[in-house]
Amino acid sequence: MTRWPLPEYMQMALAQAREAADSGEVPIGAVVVKDGRVIAAGRNGPRESHDPTSHAEIEAIRAAARALGNERLEGCELWVTLEPCAMCAGAIAHARIARLYYGASDPKGGAVEHGARVFEHEQCLHRPEVYPGIGEAESADLLRGFFRERR
Amino acid sequence: MTRWPLPEYMQMALAQAREAADSGEVPIGAVVVKDGRVIAAGRNGPRESHDPTSHAEIEAIRAAARALGNERLEGCELWVTLEPCAMCAGAIAHARIARLYYGASDPKGGAVEHGARVFEHEQCLHRPEVYPGIGEAESADLLRGFFRERR
Repeated sequence: MTRWPLPEYMQMALAQAREAADSGEVPIGAVVVKDGRVIAAGRNGPRESHDPTSHAEIEAIRAAARALGNERLEGCELWVTLEPCAMCAGAIAHARIARLYYGASDPKGGAVEHGARVFEHEQCLHRPEVYPGIGEAESADLLRGFFRERR
Repeated sequence: MTRWPLPEYMQMALAQAREAADSGEVPIGAVVVKDGRVIAAGRNGPRESHDPTSHAEIEAIRAAARALGNERLEGCELWVTLEPCAMCAGAIAHARIARLYYGASDPKGGAVEHGARVFEHEQCLHRPEVYPGIGEAESADLLRGFFRERR
């Protein structure tokens, strides 16, 4: 477990992840924060919504953009429990997210520090600051527990 | 111009792109085809919808998944006027699109044959067959005309 108190935003993202698990979806959650205020939350839900783009980050980003009435989330932070995939990293860049905090690394599907490394190419028109590893153990525990139950 | 008759699906994607331009959005369009039938269409529209994920591919994929009641678009083709970005390439993989046909290459923002090359990493869990260059000139003309008018 992380040895310092988890920032409340990551706690809220983890709560979203638990909600996903309760609905039978892979437990990943996210929140968007602006000026210290949570303006949107989202959790993974592609099966029940019949939407392959329904990842926690996409849901939170779309909700935040609706809330602000602007497709650019300038000055916003995204807190998410797992390293974003290529789709979500791309959405983070398009949304101009200023800072990305994520929990567990995802060697199998991540695209920030693994694989496509979306932010590291000149075709990526905006790069957030990236802070990995916050709530890493809690996020990984949730995912392990979910897949263990399903085996 | 392409020297053979453009497949009707790319013509329909180009019509979607022209619709985007008429609304002041960058002209990119897409259709999803299954068993020779168009089941969904989409066009770029992030500004008017306040949705940074509102690219033609995402709109068409979400509409197709809704239409089929399934987040996996097995056996479906995506026809799009421009090389997909990282976000859209990721969505194409998540949706299990079988075949991707696109018009113009996009050295500045593409992530299929440029930059992140999303389909070329082991973290990409599904790779479509990819057919570039169909309707390339028509697509590029639309984009050039759009940006020329705005300068």
